[in-house]
Amino acid sequence: MRSPQSLRNGETPSPHPRIPPHHFHSTVSAQKLRRFNTVILVFRLASFCFSLAAFVFMLTNSRGSNSPHWYDFDAFRFVVVANAIVALYSLFEMGASVWEISKGATVFPEILQVWFDFSHDQVFAYLLLSADAAGTALARTLKRTETCTDDNAFCVQSDIAIALGYGGFLFLGFSSLLSGFRVVCFIINGSRFHI
Amino acid sequence: MRSPQSLRNGETPSPHPRIPPHHFHSTVSAQKLRRFNTVILVFRLASFCFSLAAFVFMLTNSRGSNSPHWYDFDAFRFVVVANAIVALYSLFEMGASVWEISKGATVFPEILQVWFDFSHDQVFAYLLLSADAAGTALARTLKRTETCTDDNAFCVQSDIAIALGYGGFLFLGFSSLLSGFRVVCFIINGSRFHI
Repeated sequence: MRSPQSLRNGETPSPHPRIPPHHFHSTVSAQKLRRFNTVILVFRLASFCFSLAAFVFMLTNSRGSNSPHWYDFDAFRFVVVANAIVALYSLFEMGASVWEISKGATVFPEILQVWFDFSHDQVFAYLLLSADAAGTALARTLKRTETCTDDNAFCVQSDIAIALGYGGFLFLGFSSLLSGFRVVCFIINGSRFHI
Repeated sequence: MRSPQSLRNGETPSPHPRIPPHHFHSTVSAQKLRRFNTVILVFRLASFCFSLAAFVFMLTNSRGSNSPHWYDFDAFRFVVVANAIVALYSLFEMGASVWEISKGATVFPEILQVWFDFSHDQVFAYLLLSADAAGTALARTLKRTETCTDDNAFCVQSDIAIALGYGGFLFLGFSSLLSGFRVVCFIINGSRFHI
């Protein structure tokens, strides 16, 4: 006969009573959360690498006083600033992910963290896409002018920087999907654990 | 004494047994849903008006054979196409909203409808923002060239069209927030009713 104290309210009897079912459940969900956070970390890393590379490529895009400089063009300045912001943000989020994987707790309180991540992912994704679109429009216009016929290397390097920026946007978009999923899990369960 | 048939499974006894609690609950949530759908409809209408106006302003932006035309510039073509797509989509979504408010049911099956709305809102918001950003970059570049000094009306009209496009993006973004909220409600409750 089972003693009445061994079952809590609403708990079904376990076939293996030596493993507490609550402990087993939380171990599985902690493992899943760790895997999920690792995937986010990889996306953050990719986003950081792409936007840092785009920033550096555009920033070093000036060769002497006679050739054109990136800071002569509004849209290229926008590309530099947007990529710098996204690189810094991705670096911060990588730190937060590593902290969460190693310590098992979020940097900010949980509700603040999930909403912070999702809202910033969304806003910075729009920012980076608009910078890249503006940069693309300018680069295509420059193709027909003397700027590109006189100094083709300037235009090629701009194109590469803008393409790298699109890569950063892509991975930031993936991160945004995952952080949106975390927000939904938080709303449903009251915790970021998604089981 | 209450007869045992008057209570369903898991239903708590109501202090006013003459109003069935289930009916009362669904009436309140149907009213809230109707108000929510009306707000979405207003945003869709605003988004439709702005993007249609942007489309028309850019499309009529050519004066005779000697002056520049909108279709000579890649970014302006992109603005026209993106605004046309958003205007058509908003028109369709307005129809779907009106249908839902009047008939009380969605056009597609419910799960398909909430995901369709949210995903298309997101994708078209990105599309419209990138078109507007590209258009802005081109318009700013043209300011310094002969195109604008010779025919200033062309540039002013382009600026107005792009500004209207930003308005369309703003209201599409608001719609996207609301349709995202509907998706979360659907995931939590298994229905778009948010009580």
